[in-house]
Amino acid sequence: MSKMNAYKLQLMYEGTNYAGWQRQNNAVTVQGELEKALAVILRTPVSLVGVSRTDAGVHAANFIANFQMEGSADTKKLCRGVNALLPPDIRVMNITTCSPDFSARFDALRKTYIYRIDTSPCGNAFCRNFTWHHPAPLDVEKMQKAAAHFLGEHDFSAFMAQGGSAKTFTRNIMESEITENNQILEYRITGNGFLYNMVRIIVGTLVWVGRGKIEPDAIPDLIAAKDRTRVGMTAPAKGLMLWQAEYDHQDM
Amino acid sequence: MSKMNAYKLQLMYEGTNYAGWQRQNNAVTVQGELEKALAVILRTPVSLVGVSRTDAGVHAANFIANFQMEGSADTKKLCRGVNALLPPDIRVMNITTCSPDFSARFDALRKTYIYRIDTSPCGNAFCRNFTWHHPAPLDVEKMQKAAAHFLGEHDFSAFMAQGGSAKTFTRNIMESEITENNQILEYRITGNGFLYNMVRIIVGTLVWVGRGKIEPDAIPDLIAAKDRTRVGMTAPAKGLMLWQAEYDHQDM
Repeated sequence: MSKMNAYKLQLMYEGTNYAGWQRQNNAVTVQGELEKALAVILRTPVSLVGVSRTDAGVHAANFIANFQMEGSADTKKLCRGVNALLPPDIRVMNITTCSPDFSARFDALRKTYIYRIDTSPCGNAFCRNFTWHHPAPLDVEKMQKAAAHFLGEHDFSAFMAQGGSAKTFTRNIMESEITENNQILEYRITGNGFLYNMVRIIVGTLVWVGRGKIEPDAIPDLIAAKDRTRVGMTAPAKGLMLWQAEYDHQDM
Repeated sequence: MSKMNAYKLQLMYEGTNYAGWQRQNNAVTVQGELEKALAVILRTPVSLVGVSRTDAGVHAANFIANFQMEGSADTKKLCRGVNALLPPDIRVMNITTCSPDFSARFDALRKTYIYRIDTSPCGNAFCRNFTWHHPAPLDVEKMQKAAAHFLGEHDFSAFMAQGGSAKTFTRNIMESEITENNQILEYRITGNGFLYNMVRIIVGTLVWVGRGKIEPDAIPDLIAAKDRTRVGMTAPAKGLMLWQAEYDHQDM
């Protein structure tokens, strides 16, 4: 049997036109498009492992994926060839060889997501697919106070949608911060892992804080109560972007 | 006859899905969509005057238009109503009353356009509709030198496409500058007026300079020669954005 070679891809995509990352039989997905393009160039079926299963409409600025195959490929040529086949809303920035043990999914130490809220009255035409348009007034200072309460290790059961595959619910959040720039609120959250829809439910809860429905200092109790029905709505997918994933370079 | 009232609109649009600003019988245009929405809310046909006739695929961050009508309108309500009818890629930011003599087209003292070139090898998925993807290497320093040669008053006949309505060809350029940020080149040009396709032909010429096809110091001779065939190609529409228009506040 010939030697297996391992490759790592760094890609970006606008999720607007895709039913998420994960391959599906009856829907166009990012993984599906990418595996199709790789198979054409490599002349062999390829199965990708992705850092995250982003939902329909969610974007990624730096998505890491890996695959193995028999035989070897010229990574520069492969990258050019795949980009020539892919639609312009999916771009492979880089392909490199990696350790055969590397898993984009299981070796990720930290992931950072950014969520953007457009607070302008009429909505911005240019970033409409990348923001949640929320024209009602939001108290940003209160939202900033509330965001800080998510830092540290917590059981995030209250901030999880049905349908995830997680067996444990404790996650460690190292960064949880809101900045405002030109009527766009940007929420940045970094953690060692995230439950299903966790970022979007946290954002929905922060928006409740911004609208005065809950006080910032109520957040610790809401986390402790582990009750999905007491926290905010799931914020729309299109405002969410996987910003980056960090790995131990030993694993790669 | 009842009194005529004059109104000024400030809008933004992504031009990707439109055959330009100007109303056409058999194509979807920004002016057409806007006049349709205004007529529904105002219950009377409206004819807009726009600051510029942007081409198909060209965007506008701050587009000024004006119209007159008999009777008066609540400008805030009108703005909300029109935005509710318009597609999300056209947004009216503001509607105000203005002088009955005001013309968004003829009173514009200066207009600024921005043109963006994406020089990354694979192209950026997020700004693909707002940039010209040009992965071949460009000498930015040379392009910056060349850009400065467009400053001042010149006859720009060499940088004009057939089909414009201009009777005079001298324009005064007050700003012509290239900056680079994260593999995106941004060309900013301000002038008292522009000939048909002038910015896009200047950009095409600057890209020729960046590729070493012409030297920066050849620009003055190319301007003086008034020969369209000696300067660069017309850069793609999608990289161009009308950034702002300036008026004497006495006129408004």
